[in-house]
Amino acid sequence: MNLTVSDAKLAAALQHKIDAKTKPLGALGRLERLALQIGLLQNTLSPELKNPHVLVCAGDHGALRDPAGRDLSAYPQDVTWQMVENFLAGGAAINVLARQAGMGLVVADAGVNHDFGVRPGLVNAKVGYGTRSYLSGAAMTAEERDLAMARGAVVVGDLAASGCNVLGFGEMGIGNTASASLITHLLAGAPLEDCVGRGTGLDDMGLAKKRGILSGIAVRHRGTHSPLDILALYGGFEIAMLTGAMLEAGRRGMLLLIDGFIVTSALLVAAKVQPGILAACVFSHRSQERGHAVQLDYLGVEALLELDLRLGEGTGTALAYSLVQASVAFLNEMASFESAGVSGKS
Amino acid sequence: MNLTVSDAKLAAALQHKIDAKTKPLGALGRLERLALQIGLLQNTLSPELKNPHVLVCAGDHGALRDPAGRDLSAYPQDVTWQMVENFLAGGAAINVLARQAGMGLVVADAGVNHDFGVRPGLVNAKVGYGTRSYLSGAAMTAEERDLAMARGAVVVGDLAASGCNVLGFGEMGIGNTASASLITHLLAGAPLEDCVGRGTGLDDMGLAKKRGILSGIAVRHRGTHSPLDILALYGGFEIAMLTGAMLEAGRRGMLLLIDGFIVTSALLVAAKVQPGILAACVFSHRSQERGHAVQLDYLGVEALLELDLRLGEGTGTALAYSLVQASVAFLNEMASFESAGVSGKS
Repeated sequence: MNLTVSDAKLAAALQHKIDAKTKPLGALGRLERLALQIGLLQNTLSPELKNPHVLVCAGDHGALRDPAGRDLSAYPQDVTWQMVENFLAGGAAINVLARQAGMGLVVADAGVNHDFGVRPGLVNAKVGYGTRSYLSGAAMTAEERDLAMARGAVVVGDLAASGCNVLGFGEMGIGNTASASLITHLLAGAPLEDCVGRGTGLDDMGLAKKRGILSGIAVRHRGTHSPLDILALYGGFEIAMLTGAMLEAGRRGMLLLIDGFIVTSALLVAAKVQPGILAACVFSHRSQERGHAVQLDYLGVEALLELDLRLGEGTGTALAYSLVQASVAFLNEMASFESAGVSGKS
Repeated sequence: MNLTVSDAKLAAALQHKIDAKTKPLGALGRLERLALQIGLLQNTLSPELKNPHVLVCAGDHGALRDPAGRDLSAYPQDVTWQMVENFLAGGAAINVLARQAGMGLVVADAGVNHDFGVRPGLVNAKVGYGTRSYLSGAAMTAEERDLAMARGAVVVGDLAASGCNVLGFGEMGIGNTASASLITHLLAGAPLEDCVGRGTGLDDMGLAKKRGILSGIAVRHRGTHSPLDILALYGGFEIAMLTGAMLEAGRRGMLLLIDGFIVTSALLVAAKVQPGILAACVFSHRSQERGHAVQLDYLGVEALLELDLRLGEGTGTALAYSLVQASVAFLNEMASFESAGVSGKS
């Protein structure tokens, strides 16, 4: 982060406020760094978290099965729309965890291969009935990508209008770890093998097949370096929508809570477009999905939690939110050595 | 954990309930193991967390300064009573974090070197005005130790009577990392050097002095193996009170949330007396204090969080509580594949 002079002054004032709290210097560890980050982001010594939400974008993937009939996922494509129904009925993990965390939940159909009709609680942002298969061309056109991104920005604008200033990002889309692997390989420059994992639960043979299919694809577009081109080539509509939503959230000064592997692949694109967005991001959970470590290392960041989750849906952001709240609470509510009459070091 | 036949049946039923939830198998990682543990502890498929509290025990240490005038802590002893006043005024980290987590807070004077008088919000469990110095004998008599333990049990009994079934443990006591180092060295059988750290913030010279003082003490009682004798030799009154409180919480089937280095030293004693207590424990945060890793390794457990905290007061338990809530919530509230009509693996 490059600080301006006024940023540096604020950073010093925030650090002074943190150090004056009744605790040994630095004893709140990562919560202190989080408080500093949020204070800088909101340009204040007394940050506030308002109307927190999780945005879950869903989409289907044309490349789920290759022409030889080899699956890229352990689950059938129908699970995407069935899980969206589960979100709408309140029974999925993210429903339970967002409720638990006191966060609102917005579910968006970015491009699921299913007709939901007009449904209360579902944002219709559908760009298509799943992407085309990147096994035989680009997953989406530039126009489709831009539309998905624009629809992500609109949802964030609506949330901002409702006072929301902290937003978690989640996804649902059978086959989307494969998209995230290709995007990560190309944008982070890591070996493809390190970017491909078991997704929702491939066995060893399934993983080997997935590696084989994706390595055949990755060599085809080696000349492509534009992050937005890569997004159109391999992305799901949900990933493009998340990228657009993140960029808008960044523009509006929101705090962005980043979930696991797929969400971070959308952020890789967003951060190539707007590197400053990283200062607004909290990395909530280090996923068990192999490529997530590659992404976090590439970005030079650490996740708050490591609980062996590999679920997606934004679940990591809902679990980490209480830590974010704790960091703001200690900054605003703890007494100082002076105000509490506590002695300093001997 | 040795399971009985009925435990094994319940464990299987709990695992089946967890596996039927709408998520890939095992995808909620450590939350799944936590849900299983709490279900077994409460002997039910639908556990409940009721009236959660943090119990903070405070005490002073006679060994804070050796006869040569060398300090064992970076802070003066007065900070113990000043921090108790800070707890009572609501300005300390544990006040803020417990409030944030929706947990009640009980503060007990186990043996602070200060007269608080009769004070609302403070449990008077005072065994003395600080321990004697273990630099020249035992820190407390067997009677004093038993009294501190009994008073811990009484507080837990009162909490249980109010419906509390989940209890975090915290402490305050300038000089008590030194006690915890000696207890850990003797009970976990680890080299003393690995058990001694910077406490509230000793510099390199202070740390070297602390090591020197403690190694001189540790050799003196090498023949002592009884955990309760070791507790009396080196313990603070707050550590003995915590040990008694833990044993009572274990007897009553509560879920115990264990904080950092000092609290875990009390648990080491409790687990020697009653090894079954470990099945009721959640290790909330891996402290930066060096000896905590030794303790966790010795017990063969992992902490939920690792946020570079080294504050004590039970802060780790308040931060981890939302994860404990999340584990119970997903077990009770998430839909199953069948109830939600979601397809299983291909």
